[in-house]
Amino acid sequence: MVKVAVNGYGTIGKRVADAVAKQEDMKVLGVTKTKPDFDAVIASKKFDLYAVNEQSLKVFEENGIEVHGTVEDLLKKADIVIDCSPDKVGAENKKIYEKFNIKAIFQGGEKKNVAEISFNSLANYNAAVGKRYVRVVSCNTTALCRLIYTLKENFKIGKIRATILRRVSDPKEDSKGLMNAIMPDPINVPSHHGPDVKTVIPDVDIVTAAFKLPTTLMHVHFLSIEMKEKINPSDVLTVLENEPRILLVSVGKGFTSTAKIIEYAREFRTRYDLFENVVWKESINVDGNDLFITQAVHQEAIVVPENVDAIRAMLNLSSKDESIEKTNKSLGIGKLSIV
Amino acid sequence: MVKVAVNGYGTIGKRVADAVAKQEDMKVLGVTKTKPDFDAVIASKKFDLYAVNEQSLKVFEENGIEVHGTVEDLLKKADIVIDCSPDKVGAENKKIYEKFNIKAIFQGGEKKNVAEISFNSLANYNAAVGKRYVRVVSCNTTALCRLIYTLKENFKIGKIRATILRRVSDPKEDSKGLMNAIMPDPINVPSHHGPDVKTVIPDVDIVTAAFKLPTTLMHVHFLSIEMKEKINPSDVLTVLENEPRILLVSVGKGFTSTAKIIEYAREFRTRYDLFENVVWKESINVDGNDLFITQAVHQEAIVVPENVDAIRAMLNLSSKDESIEKTNKSLGIGKLSIV
Repeated sequence: MVKVAVNGYGTIGKRVADAVAKQEDMKVLGVTKTKPDFDAVIASKKFDLYAVNEQSLKVFEENGIEVHGTVEDLLKKADIVIDCSPDKVGAENKKIYEKFNIKAIFQGGEKKNVAEISFNSLANYNAAVGKRYVRVVSCNTTALCRLIYTLKENFKIGKIRATILRRVSDPKEDSKGLMNAIMPDPINVPSHHGPDVKTVIPDVDIVTAAFKLPTTLMHVHFLSIEMKEKINPSDVLTVLENEPRILLVSVGKGFTSTAKIIEYAREFRTRYDLFENVVWKESINVDGNDLFITQAVHQEAIVVPENVDAIRAMLNLSSKDESIEKTNKSLGIGKLSIV
Repeated sequence: MVKVAVNGYGTIGKRVADAVAKQEDMKVLGVTKTKPDFDAVIASKKFDLYAVNEQSLKVFEENGIEVHGTVEDLLKKADIVIDCSPDKVGAENKKIYEKFNIKAIFQGGEKKNVAEISFNSLANYNAAVGKRYVRVVSCNTTALCRLIYTLKENFKIGKIRATILRRVSDPKEDSKGLMNAIMPDPINVPSHHGPDVKTVIPDVDIVTAAFKLPTTLMHVHFLSIEMKEKINPSDVLTVLENEPRILLVSVGKGFTSTAKIIEYAREFRTRYDLFENVVWKESINVDGNDLFITQAVHQEAIVVPENVDAIRAMLNLSSKDESIEKTNKSLGIGKLSIV
């Protein structure tokens, strides 16, 4: 039973902790928080809670929230740590992980050189086997890697041009946003997503552009993929239908926007978490040599299964297929693919 | 002095009427409205107001708004009519225009077969010379035509792939919208914009995809253009700087989003109307054979100069260059190109 520490219990951390707790070959040894907010109260009821430092420990005690020590106390006992702290804080935390000689998984908000490899379960599981430091790429990059890897395994693909329509902030973030505008982010190409995909799938020709939009639910990607062979949209549909981490939906069934996709997920998933790429069936079109695909990405949830798989790869617990199957089964991935 | 009737005084109609009134070779004979709302009061103070039918005429009189008759009374006296009625109503109105044997300009909300030609001043002014029915293409198509024509005249271009990020509704429309989502519109390619560009520039290889977003200010287009020659971004910048109907702005000067572009326009233009394509300088990038350009489009205003030019072409009043220069000068186009 692998003892997992989750350092940071925010948007990603709370989901990763829940997902790890559902695995039969691992358990959550503890989670860390900085502030005694409502998420800390929930964390302390579900898991052993640790403070990020001595000062934070005092504040938790003053607020009557049970804590079991600091992050250092937790790291001493754990086999591996998943760093779910805010962007760039992970790189700072690495110093402590080195001190405690513990394997660590970082998130996509960190620079690629924080880890030995950038990771996506489908695309390069084996590259993480036995590694000490692994970085799970960001939500958008994860979605791109899954889709591109799946296409690349089945068809001869050429240059990819992708437009990334970004939700401006997560639903809980009520102090920042973009009220009524469209913001190129950045204004020049490529956005970081294209180069980031190449950290996982080096031999792909991709350029991405990204825009921030006044919405919080999901990102949307519009991909144009130059094909090096004649293909039929129905062949692509079949290939995508066979990948459990890709969920196919249809405008014809009422999935007219990201709002409807989330409305559907609210019926079936805690926190309406969608771990899958959500691809619109009708978006799979061919024009000349170009294949077009549009997908929606639930930024809060999509990297969760990859974090779980990264643990198994780094500790050499399972083969790629075994790990993905275990993770999928435990999180219900593959069961929604009926719409 | 050409006598122009403006049938419909909504978003486009009120702007077109103002623009026609500024030309020295034409005058607004009258405008029409359906309902006695605040726009009708403004219209009646600036122009001779006509009702769209007898019933509407009575309502205006009951509300104490001065009207000079119905649209039929107006058409009898006019040399040309600009139809600015809502989408698809223009095709209905065509029957009256045929009855009164009057030349008519339709807007992009009508199907292309409503008119003999689809029109964009830069791209095909001469095709409208002497014509009886002309359709000025929609805001997005106008912006695409201007940019593509300008590039095509100066460089060897190949396939164009464009992503169109659409504002969901105009600022005044308070009863419809998309609160918090991204809606593919339509989900398959092409959106109507690509084929619509080809009605104006037939020999262009273009495919477009469109998405509706929760914003009202402007559309944004992200274009990827396969070049058939080596080019330098600075050459493209120079070419675009020389076209008055394209306004270049820079993120470096604070134009981080459509909100900032509109904030700037509020200082200089009535109703903050931007008749120009607004291209971000930093967006002009080259990757391999691809040229990338991002532009913002003020959906309420961009087609106004084209409507004015269409009058001159159809009545053979001026050459293309003369008409464009007169329209630009009267509307202040070309004078903002300093950011």
